[in-house]
Amino acid sequence: MATDTTTVHVALSERSYDIEIGPRLLPEAGRFIVERTGCSHAVVVTDSNVESLHGQRVVESLERAGIRVDIATVPAGESTKSTSHVDELWRLMLEFAADRKSIVAAVGGGVVGDLAGFIAATYGRGIRFVQIPTTLLAQVDSSVGGKVGINLPGAKNMVGAFWQPAAVLIDTDVLNTLPLREYRSGLAEVVKYGVILDSDFFKYLEDHIDGLNNREPSVMRHIVARCCELKAQVVSADEREETGLRAVLNYGHTFCHAIEAETGYGTYLHGEAVAIGMLCASRLAEAMGRIDAELTRRQHALLEALGLPLTVPDVDHDVLIRAMQKDKKTEHGKLRFVLPTCLGHVELVSGVPADLVRAALAG
Amino acid sequence: MATDTTTVHVALSERSYDIEIGPRLLPEAGRFIVERTGCSHAVVVTDSNVESLHGQRVVESLERAGIRVDIATVPAGESTKSTSHVDELWRLMLEFAADRKSIVAAVGGGVVGDLAGFIAATYGRGIRFVQIPTTLLAQVDSSVGGKVGINLPGAKNMVGAFWQPAAVLIDTDVLNTLPLREYRSGLAEVVKYGVILDSDFFKYLEDHIDGLNNREPSVMRHIVARCCELKAQVVSADEREETGLRAVLNYGHTFCHAIEAETGYGTYLHGEAVAIGMLCASRLAEAMGRIDAELTRRQHALLEALGLPLTVPDVDHDVLIRAMQKDKKTEHGKLRFVLPTCLGHVELVSGVPADLVRAALAG
Repeated sequence: MATDTTTVHVALSERSYDIEIGPRLLPEAGRFIVERTGCSHAVVVTDSNVESLHGQRVVESLERAGIRVDIATVPAGESTKSTSHVDELWRLMLEFAADRKSIVAAVGGGVVGDLAGFIAATYGRGIRFVQIPTTLLAQVDSSVGGKVGINLPGAKNMVGAFWQPAAVLIDTDVLNTLPLREYRSGLAEVVKYGVILDSDFFKYLEDHIDGLNNREPSVMRHIVARCCELKAQVVSADEREETGLRAVLNYGHTFCHAIEAETGYGTYLHGEAVAIGMLCASRLAEAMGRIDAELTRRQHALLEALGLPLTVPDVDHDVLIRAMQKDKKTEHGKLRFVLPTCLGHVELVSGVPADLVRAALAG
Repeated sequence: MATDTTTVHVALSERSYDIEIGPRLLPEAGRFIVERTGCSHAVVVTDSNVESLHGQRVVESLERAGIRVDIATVPAGESTKSTSHVDELWRLMLEFAADRKSIVAAVGGGVVGDLAGFIAATYGRGIRFVQIPTTLLAQVDSSVGGKVGINLPGAKNMVGAFWQPAAVLIDTDVLNTLPLREYRSGLAEVVKYGVILDSDFFKYLEDHIDGLNNREPSVMRHIVARCCELKAQVVSADEREETGLRAVLNYGHTFCHAIEAETGYGTYLHGEAVAIGMLCASRLAEAMGRIDAELTRRQHALLEALGLPLTVPDVDHDVLIRAMQKDKKTEHGKLRFVLPTCLGHVELVSGVPADLVRAALAG
């Protein structure tokens, strides 16, 4: 690998793996994958948007590395995370004569990673899987942690597995091809890591607004690497979401999921809804006397400088609260939130009164 | 549990579990499952043959234990291990509002166990699973080991997972309701355990022909418990079929799979094809000078006394050999067999010449 790459190790005993982060990595994908996995065959799963931009380059790189390559291109968009696409990909894997020496390489955003990862987790009772995330959101979030899966009608991520990749390759140059709105959406999750786990990183973001908005390569590499490190620490401590530790990653997400569901999926990009959700959660923490107003103000200023939406959409607040009570992570309708206690630290708080939630939504 | 039950522990670190074996256990299933899992909801998956015989009794027992119960009944038969039934069961699980506190209880033979286990492995990224096997084959084989999955067209067990049950409950009384041919088919796998791992157990079988043919309760309990113990030892040493140790369980199976495929699935029951396959493998080992004729003779006599078929069906032997070369466990067409070296011990042997295989088929 080139000298300007960063390696993040994800410690999960025999399922440990490395994330390689840096510019100009896509053309090296073939060598990287063959070195790491010793595979003799790769199935590249990508989507209709990413195929020509990046998918073909990964295919060519794998071919140069001397292995047999097949490509499966699925339609772009969340509706691809469906049982019918799973069925189709299972059959394609069989047509491609994929076996234990094959790997699945996911080249795309979260949808492609989740779907391709689920195929890898289940075909042949599990084969190896390499993530090559091409959106900022996927680079800092869904490519780390081993959660793979698909949606059932009306139930996001209801079918899936914990299936750790054999390796993750993150080419930060691909961020230059991301539409602005999608790039900004990823930044919301980046800000989240600062709030929940690392006050120094939050300060770094405040100090590098221009670098962030201009997608400066050194800033890109730093933020992606730091987010992967932070997420890797959380995932190592709670791989299968059993101890509750992993819940810290859901800061802003109880509000976010309600907003996404009630405005119709796709109205807000995920990170946009996260940004609004974080501000709601921060106001809620304020109202409960957990933090002072300054922390909310700093998040507001940073998210605003990064061009993210800040205000709760015009939806009846009681409708949003009812959606939160039905959230799959809620038990018996009790409202539960991840709330900050100071910059860099959050806690899971159960049984929050609905009127405080209503006030937080009102802003 | 009653005093005439036997508990077999399957040691798999944090995935360890117990198998409870004995008569009259079905009516205690509810208490057993709630004690072991603390579940608040159970989805009983069973098939159209087993539902009225045993499935309903498990449902009633679970209801008596005070938890919410749903039942999903699939058609009996191998064709149920399909992507369309998986899809249907995923949706049913959602309709049943199954969550992390739910368990899936498989009540049936290998098909139900494999299908229900795959649902448990993937719904909600994996929920707990209890096996209640009702055929001898499932009791001694597929209920131990954590292999779950379904078929793709032309490819058996091509999609699946390793997903260990939280507990296994084996009521040996249910063996009395098995059709004779199906019962005998299970006995072939029982004989296999003696040949591959335990000469004393093989002698026990030789000494209890009448007890086996009459399904005597004490004999039933002993053979099921011993087979589970033996399989548990193998699985503990090679949970995910990575070291090759688990391959010993495939004694007779290279021949068996070719016979099943070329006579059309269903012509022979699996255990029947295993019986024929074991005798072929034993003759092959003889021809290679690994064992003397006496070991083949003893297997032949025991399988014959248990009413199992012994002769290779009238299929072109070259067709069978080509099927073996295409077996998914074959690499680059090299013929590979699990062969005995003495009673109670087998080895994996690669690169066996085709003419020796042809001679073993000729008998």
